[in-house]
Amino acid sequence: MTTDTARLQAPHADRAPDSGRPVMPRGARLRPLSLTDVRITAGYWAELQHRNQSAILPHIDHWLERTGWLGNFDAAREHRLPAGRAGREFSDSEIYKFLEAMAWELGRRPDPALQRRFDAIVARIAAAQEPDGYVNTRFGRPGQEPRWSDLEMGHELYCVGFLLQAAVARIRTGHPEDLLVEVARRAADLVCDVFGEDGIESVDGHPQIESALVELYRATGDRRYLEQARLFVDRRGHHVLKEIEFGREYFQDDIPVREAEVFRGHAVRALYLAAGAVDLADETDDGALREAVARQWRRTVARRTYITGGMGSRHQDEAFAEDFVLPPDRAYSETCAGVASVMLAWRLLLAEGDPAYADLIERTLFNVVSTSPSADGRAFFYANTLHRRELGGPADPDRPSVRAAASLRAPWFEVSCCPTNVARTLASLAAYVATADEDGLQLHQYMSGTVSHSRADGQELRVTVTTEYPYDGEIRVRIDSRADRAWSLSLRVPGWATRGASVTVGADTRPVGPGTLTERRVWRPGDEVVLRLPMTPRFTYPDPRIDAVRGCVAVERGPLVMALESVDVPRTASVDALRVDVSAPPRVVDGQVVVRFHGLASRDHNWPYSARGDEHKPEQPIKTADIPLVPYHAWANRGPSTMRVWLPVDATRA
Amino acid sequence: MTTDTARLQAPHADRAPDSGRPVMPRGARLRPLSLTDVRITAGYWAELQHRNQSAILPHIDHWLERTGWLGNFDAAREHRLPAGRAGREFSDSEIYKFLEAMAWELGRRPDPALQRRFDAIVARIAAAQEPDGYVNTRFGRPGQEPRWSDLEMGHELYCVGFLLQAAVARIRTGHPEDLLVEVARRAADLVCDVFGEDGIESVDGHPQIESALVELYRATGDRRYLEQARLFVDRRGHHVLKEIEFGREYFQDDIPVREAEVFRGHAVRALYLAAGAVDLADETDDGALREAVARQWRRTVARRTYITGGMGSRHQDEAFAEDFVLPPDRAYSETCAGVASVMLAWRLLLAEGDPAYADLIERTLFNVVSTSPSADGRAFFYANTLHRRELGGPADPDRPSVRAAASLRAPWFEVSCCPTNVARTLASLAAYVATADEDGLQLHQYMSGTVSHSRADGQELRVTVTTEYPYDGEIRVRIDSRADRAWSLSLRVPGWATRGASVTVGADTRPVGPGTLTERRVWRPGDEVVLRLPMTPRFTYPDPRIDAVRGCVAVERGPLVMALESVDVPRTASVDALRVDVSAPPRVVDGQVVVRFHGLASRDHNWPYSARGDEHKPEQPIKTADIPLVPYHAWANRGPSTMRVWLPVDATRA
Repeated sequence: MTTDTARLQAPHADRAPDSGRPVMPRGARLRPLSLTDVRITAGYWAELQHRNQSAILPHIDHWLERTGWLGNFDAAREHRLPAGRAGREFSDSEIYKFLEAMAWELGRRPDPALQRRFDAIVARIAAAQEPDGYVNTRFGRPGQEPRWSDLEMGHELYCVGFLLQAAVARIRTGHPEDLLVEVARRAADLVCDVFGEDGIESVDGHPQIESALVELYRATGDRRYLEQARLFVDRRGHHVLKEIEFGREYFQDDIPVREAEVFRGHAVRALYLAAGAVDLADETDDGALREAVARQWRRTVARRTYITGGMGSRHQDEAFAEDFVLPPDRAYSETCAGVASVMLAWRLLLAEGDPAYADLIERTLFNVVSTSPSADGRAFFYANTLHRRELGGPADPDRPSVRAAASLRAPWFEVSCCPTNVARTLASLAAYVATADEDGLQLHQYMSGTVSHSRADGQELRVTVTTEYPYDGEIRVRIDSRADRAWSLSLRVPGWATRGASVTVGADTRPVGPGTLTERRVWRPGDEVVLRLPMTPRFTYPDPRIDAVRGCVAVERGPLVMALESVDVPRTASVDALRVDVSAPPRVVDGQVVVRFHGLASRDHNWPYSARGDEHKPEQPIKTADIPLVPYHAWANRGPSTMRVWLPVDATRA
Repeated sequence: MTTDTARLQAPHADRAPDSGRPVMPRGARLRPLSLTDVRITAGYWAELQHRNQSAILPHIDHWLERTGWLGNFDAAREHRLPAGRAGREFSDSEIYKFLEAMAWELGRRPDPALQRRFDAIVARIAAAQEPDGYVNTRFGRPGQEPRWSDLEMGHELYCVGFLLQAAVARIRTGHPEDLLVEVARRAADLVCDVFGEDGIESVDGHPQIESALVELYRATGDRRYLEQARLFVDRRGHHVLKEIEFGREYFQDDIPVREAEVFRGHAVRALYLAAGAVDLADETDDGALREAVARQWRRTVARRTYITGGMGSRHQDEAFAEDFVLPPDRAYSETCAGVASVMLAWRLLLAEGDPAYADLIERTLFNVVSTSPSADGRAFFYANTLHRRELGGPADPDRPSVRAAASLRAPWFEVSCCPTNVARTLASLAAYVATADEDGLQLHQYMSGTVSHSRADGQELRVTVTTEYPYDGEIRVRIDSRADRAWSLSLRVPGWATRGASVTVGADTRPVGPGTLTERRVWRPGDEVVLRLPMTPRFTYPDPRIDAVRGCVAVERGPLVMALESVDVPRTASVDALRVDVSAPPRVVDGQVVVRFHGLASRDHNWPYSARGDEHKPEQPIKTADIPLVPYHAWANRGPSTMRVWLPVDATRA
């Protein structure tokens, strides 16, 4: 095994020293900051990162060994495949996502034990790599299907993509000569040989490698990877894959990326592809391509997105449904689609600066990504339903669950993409907090910690943020750096803060509305900007075209979507027999959001449809109770329960 | 090939001469009448039967050859399998259902050409049968998987079941020595050998053979078949099949039939199994088993059935969802589940006499089974959605559609169970009209035609029914027979006729309510009973627990569920922007049901959820229009359209 060290060290002049940015577009409007530029020190996000480090990562490590998915690489080295290969066709990708998570974690703080574990796993992968760079435990050996023989569903390039992403994380955290980088580059070079201009004119059924190739180009400067990403993006949509039962829309091979109007088909596939297309657009100055994706994003957000930020309404093909088809009970809202949506919105935010992208990131991080892991970090939601009607027992702690059994957190899944995706996202969370541009700093998400940036002119900008957000609306930003010249501090006022937000700068307090709030001045150390966001809980109504939640309201507080959980309902296991009294606004009592409900007496009839006045009287609420709601992301942590996000309104009081 | 003619001619003393009854329970309360006892002469059902004979059956014949599914039997005979075998693992069953349809058709009227075609197909099947009786083109040959190696999904016994059903149809239409009967008995005997008391202790993943074995027992008197059916019914539910992704509930192997509380899992599987269990209960005087099924039926009808009678809410696993989960847009409501539901309700009706069973049969025949075939009989719905949001183009007339593309009628499907199931049901439709008991005749469904019955005492009872039902509510029953003694004529007053129904006997007219209306007297030829059912269209409200249609009404007229179709909506292609004015009752204008709507102005927002008073004003209806509805079963016959059964109510006028 050799490495092309000359090429590895090739100069890529326009790049700052890489130190932990998941995305590094060249021409973007906003520059991402690194995991060391942004430090999360306390509060909600710090707890999530701690949970990731102390529980989620060891849990994943345990299951990757236990299931034999890591062992597949040893079996490959020892020529024991295909007999006894464990796991689905994409199981290799989980190891790569786990490595990526570890790489970001190691970029945040040294951890010799974690580093040893990382190196040991990389060695096992490297030993399984074929002389020509091919590395996949599922294809290509005697007794296995040939390489690239099932582009529709084989996930070979998808797996390579995550390998590249893990390598990019190593390069960006200071290890450009890591063995993992060598393995990844050899795999990427093979992909370029096989799928290049004169190679197989096709794509992978599961997009993902597109973004990974652009990122590898960014991290190494090798334009071949960018060119390969362009081929993959441009080929898709021209029916290059075989038709499958779910149609070509499933893997976005129905319409070219540049021509589509909305995201459709398998949600994770659609969003990974879109992220890759934005990456490509950024590096090739292709404004038309980026605008095509942004247009699809806008329509998808306006018509195909759950209130949680979740995407994907269909279990059958894990797919987007038609406009306004957003059933809460069959919400698929896959955790990985949430991760992919954050990746996409972040890329669009960097490119365009529109706070709407950061709004969706916030919503998705608090209400999808946060919802997946249990409070102890040892179980996960794969899908994130918004309505559970039946009590479910706990998932079997001793074996993988079927992914579609999605209404319970489970320790592991036969298709276990979500836990590792959560882990790599939480490990790199700081990267999504803030950006910089020529003029100053932009804070997009609020957490307690520090944000710093060394400007091109050598000036150091640094602020400390103190907040208990999302439980409290006060966000205190203190300037720590001394600068001679004026610079801008920008804060996002979330889209949900339509009234009641204010900002205090010095002695001056004034109301502010949703959007970007920019204060430009010569800042002195100790100067403070205090943003106060309105944390009064509120009723939220759906667009009347969303049939599935007609006559219902949701309750939100700040960025958190709230849920009614049966463990909080007196004397009943069901949440479905309650009607909200919208004449009584939701209140905060002892830190809990409390809503007034009327119990509904429902009788069974032989046939559940009738003329009014016959069997079905208008609903007759019978009892009144004030019941606390929980943040949606926290539900299902207190034993089996039923749950609703969308609450039917008591029509007699509306 | 030999046949056990001695056994074929064994006496089964308690059986009347068989002449065309799809179901012949021994101990039932009501006796079914045959296809010659009941003659449908005009009107709705006669048109359907004519369409079946003139268009549907030739269409099926064409596609069975064109797809090569029939050719598979020739390939088997010529030892050309498995190379080039066409179709899915259950394709043999379509040929058997087609034969069953032809058998009933031939039982109604002689047709030499049809008889020749029938014989030719049977000869091809017989030639493919193995010496030991095995007949299946998908398993058991060199290069194929072994026999019975995939009980979960292989459908081998399912295919045998339909072979037996076709043979039963031949026996009951006067051909007990038909070659098809011989083929079927040899196949059934092999099943008993292989799966008997000392054989493989398992069942088929797709129930169906249970009912077929009991029917073959009824038709032949061979108790071995009954015993085998008992083994299959009793084994299921004890985890005898391997777990699959959808869980054991999918094929009802989660809970024994006797212990279950409700139908669950794959809807067609659940309903075929239940029908077989009722057949078994009838022949073994097992009241507890029948009551267990009846109890599950009652809960399913009260909580898991669409207003059309359709069953099954989930596309993913073609399954029942939880109680009250009945989304109109994702209604699966498979046509075959409608057929199976009719089969089951008919068995329960014969056993118990409760008109609720006939009510569901009526609803399902008019609104599910009738909906599947197009007006020209050359395209079919596989699933029967209750809400279509997007215009769809016509299905490709030249190739099979994917079954899940269910919102359009298609000429054929890769999984094409529905067209043949419709055909065998329509061919035997007369059997579901009426029954007899010791005391007289019972009319359960209303069509123009004659019903006759020779009582055990030799007395001939005969009536002529004249009606334009379901388009008119007057049903005129004239007595044709002369009898010395009093007998009872019973008429079903449908459950939907809660007010306004009346009956006239002679000069006496009186109001009647839902249930069974019985007139007992010494009838004279020319005596008339006139039932008048209220055909005023009506608004129907859903149980408040059905989340998916909160705030909506349906419109029904008589037994017909009505639908709003976009081709009837002025100046818009969408039905989703209309709100019903429930203060204006639906009317009949020029024979059409007309409803008053208000158009709704909907604007797109960046985010479709907001506080009331911000972006989403209460809905502001802007225009008023009276729009005709169509019977649901007739929709999608006038080009691409969008459609709703459940219509949102204009809340400002409710």
